Amino acid sequence: MRHMAQARMAQSSLSGFPEWLPAGRLVEQHFIDTLRRTFELHGFSGIETRAVEPLSQLTKKGETSKEVYLLSRLQADPNEPAETDPGKQLGLHFDLTVPFTRYVVDNAGTLTFPFKRYQIQKVWRGERPQEGRFREFYQVDIDVVGDGGLPLHYDVEAPLIMHEALCALPVPPVTIHVSNRKVAQGFYQAVGIPDAQLAEVLRAVDKLDKTGPQAVTAELVDTVGTTPEQAAAALRLATIQGTEPQQVSDAVLSALEGAEPTELLLTGLDELTYLIATAGRRRPGAVVADLKIARGLDYYTGTVYESFMAGAHDLGSVCSGGRYDNLASNGRRTFPGVGISIGLSRLLSRVLADGVVEVSRAVPTAVLVAVTDEEHRSQSDAVADALRARGISAETAPTAAKFGKQIRFADKRGIPFVWFPGPEGAADSVKDIRSGEQVEAEAATWTPADPTDLAPRLRARPQTP
Amino acid sequence: MRHMAQARMAQSSLSGFPEWLPAGRLVEQHFIDTLRRTFELHGFSGIETRAVEPLSQLTKKGETSKEVYLLSRLQADPNEPAETDPGKQLGLHFDLTVPFTRYVVDNAGTLTFPFKRYQIQKVWRGERPQEGRFREFYQVDIDVVGDGGLPLHYDVEAPLIMHEALCALPVPPVTIHVSNRKVAQGFYQAVGIPDAQLAEVLRAVDKLDKTGPQAVTAELVDTVGTTPEQAAAALRLATIQGTEPQQVSDAVLSALEGAEPTELLLTGLDELTYLIATAGRRRPGAVVADLKIARGLDYYTGTVYESFMAGAHDLGSVCSGGRYDNLASNGRRTFPGVGISIGLSRLLSRVLADGVVEVSRAVPTAVLVAVTDEEHRSQSDAVADALRARGISAETAPTAAKFGKQIRFADKRGIPFVWFPGPEGAADSVKDIRSGEQVEAEAATWTPADPTDLAPRLRARPQTP
Repeated sequence: MRHMAQARMAQSSLSGFPEWLPAGRLVEQHFIDTLRRTFELHGFSGIETRAVEPLSQLTKKGETSKEVYLLSRLQADPNEPAETDPGKQLGLHFDLTVPFTRYVVDNAGTLTFPFKRYQIQKVWRGERPQEGRFREFYQVDIDVVGDGGLPLHYDVEAPLIMHEALCALPVPPVTIHVSNRKVAQGFYQAVGIPDAQLAEVLRAVDKLDKTGPQAVTAELVDTVGTTPEQAAAALRLATIQGTEPQQVSDAVLSALEGAEPTELLLTGLDELTYLIATAGRRRPGAVVADLKIARGLDYYTGTVYESFMAGAHDLGSVCSGGRYDNLASNGRRTFPGVGISIGLSRLLSRVLADGVVEVSRAVPTAVLVAVTDEEHRSQSDAVADALRARGISAETAPTAAKFGKQIRFADKRGIPFVWFPGPEGAADSVKDIRSGEQVEAEAATWTPADPTDLAPRLRARPQTP
Repeated sequence: MRHMAQARMAQSSLSGFPEWLPAGRLVEQHFIDTLRRTFELHGFSGIETRAVEPLSQLTKKGETSKEVYLLSRLQADPNEPAETDPGKQLGLHFDLTVPFTRYVVDNAGTLTFPFKRYQIQKVWRGERPQEGRFREFYQVDIDVVGDGGLPLHYDVEAPLIMHEALCALPVPPVTIHVSNRKVAQGFYQAVGIPDAQLAEVLRAVDKLDKTGPQAVTAELVDTVGTTPEQAAAALRLATIQGTEPQQVSDAVLSALEGAEPTELLLTGLDELTYLIATAGRRRPGAVVADLKIARGLDYYTGTVYESFMAGAHDLGSVCSGGRYDNLASNGRRTFPGVGISIGLSRLLSRVLADGVVEVSRAVPTAVLVAVTDEEHRSQSDAVADALRARGISAETAPTAAKFGKQIRFADKRGIPFVWFPGPEGAADSVKDIRSGEQVEAEAATWTPADPTDLAPRLRARPQTP
């Protein structure tokens, strides 16, 4: 008997809207519970924001507007402004950072700062679904925001907490790659690239892993309009990686090939080297400086993160984020923040599709209480109640079928134990249907020989490289 | 010092889309965890379905169509049918029963039956928000579906499990009121009301508590078109309540005043009396027969449930459901089901608004580790790491401010303990900032005198009637 449940995706008629069979959901719930426990150990409060934001809020950053799902009511009410005024249209959130910063501004008078929160919710993106991209998926975010200022040590804590959380999951090791926008911008300034080209240069360099140095150079020179020397300098910067602060710092400065470092570059280097020095001391191997990391979103102002899972680089970054000093503001006060976010559904669909994670059964039930005949169902119900009162998940058989059929019912679900109430005064007995061993038992005292049988077990399957 | 956190609603600019401050979310999360634990003890698997369903699926039942939120993409793709074909439009689900039955049909080849599942997700209704009505809210559903048939004992188990789950929450007692569609329909048939009027009669009788017997009689006679005698009989049925099977059965039959009971009525009475007899034996006081319970939705075919919380009858039913024999079908196979659902957000907003539930703090943090100066931050980080390794939620102070300020930081959040790392070789100490008591401590061994201080505590505040 093989007792591993199918942690597969359910049949779904809508492309891009994944659903899990019960075993898959059980793994997803385990991941969520584990992440949450780590965040709470670090003092993060959980919040949820509404799924819906005003369109104006969602399209603040132009490039994401194509992804937004708009809402309308099937029977719109002409008396309600949101129904008719295009300025008050509503859309589904496409990430958790934009809603979170809106929530912070809305509740700035009540929240205490620095405010540390985690948020685990589904988000929606209307883009065309393609390899591993979903239209509805879970994001798992942690952020810290300050009121007016936020110490740099939170730039270190955010990725370390996320790394600790990921290490608690049965997935291959994840490494967090960090860079700093100030380093990139300061470096480009130093080699004479104008600030107006910054976004385009970052976007071109971001493709380095996909398209290679020649294509990136061509794009920089032909499309963005840098000189060949500037393009070469940008590529020298982009290839720097390391965990030793001094080495990284030296490499960046020598990549200037004589150009004078700007103030911004030096500030950025201080931040970056502080980050990798502290991270290297607290969680060796968790964080590596990687100067090509750029991030698509333009609200990042300093540290940026991307993360890669061993054996799954083709999946792209499984966990990303950065420092945003100006995203949350009500005009009078700004709330600088730093955060990092897991695309949980993508990560999960990958590890389940690869068979990296298995689960021992799809149901929480540890014990099926057999029913001798319908007249004695209450006897079986009483046994199940007694087990549950002791925290043991139990259910009573659906019908008083032959015992062989009731055992097959349990077997099909991976329920390890079947309980047989004793007839008239005789003792009850419980059978481990995997080994066939049957012993006398009392509902008030019985525990399985292996207590881990009480709940579904997740197992990371050793991978052959 | 008063250490109760504000479990209030957050500021939100969108009417009908509630958000909680961290303390409120903490209570919500506690409610969800508690409900889930009870369902899992009973062998229910958790699933989630996509938020989105085809409009055709959502509008199967005509009367709910007005509540549906439609989706469209801000930049629609003319190549994709769902964008242009009105027959393929998508909307947000307005409950969890319709998506669940669709999921069952989609995955009938893989699921094992009877399939027991719980589902805790947000749903959306586009109706105008009014007193306590939300446009986005949590529903908490349990359902059991069979393949071709489903034993009646699940009609008893569903409300008992929900009652057990509700009893585990710090809320006033809830009583589940049950009736049976077959009883109502069979009774109306017996007194000569045609089946075509059934839905209208049920809807009229459903208003009995709100508008009173005279208004209901007037509606039945003037609008629906029953005779005054039929209206009187319907009211006699509707006023029957009880927990004694024989008394309920006798009352229903005598309410016929000589009319001959139909087969359907007798079948329904058998089901109803079996339910209250079994429920009364297993959880005395949980379930009461209440013959006026009708439920608005027309897919119920037998047992129906509504539930009322002591002291909050004006809130209406906090938990409703019933048996649906024909809702899930793929044409060849039908999957009869029975389920019951809590409107969690409404229940929660009521108990929090009334101050029925309080929470000791809004953050998970038990210990704030003070920072003497920024040079020694790593010493404080090491203490926090050591505490967390033992499962104690800890955070390091945001800045090396004066200790008084760091203590106020903890106090403001309700964090009970502040940890002071010892200078150079001296022992650490920890202060309970509520009592002021300070003791020497080691991070590897310390535990608070009262271990319940380790996590935020929920408290049901005694109500004055």
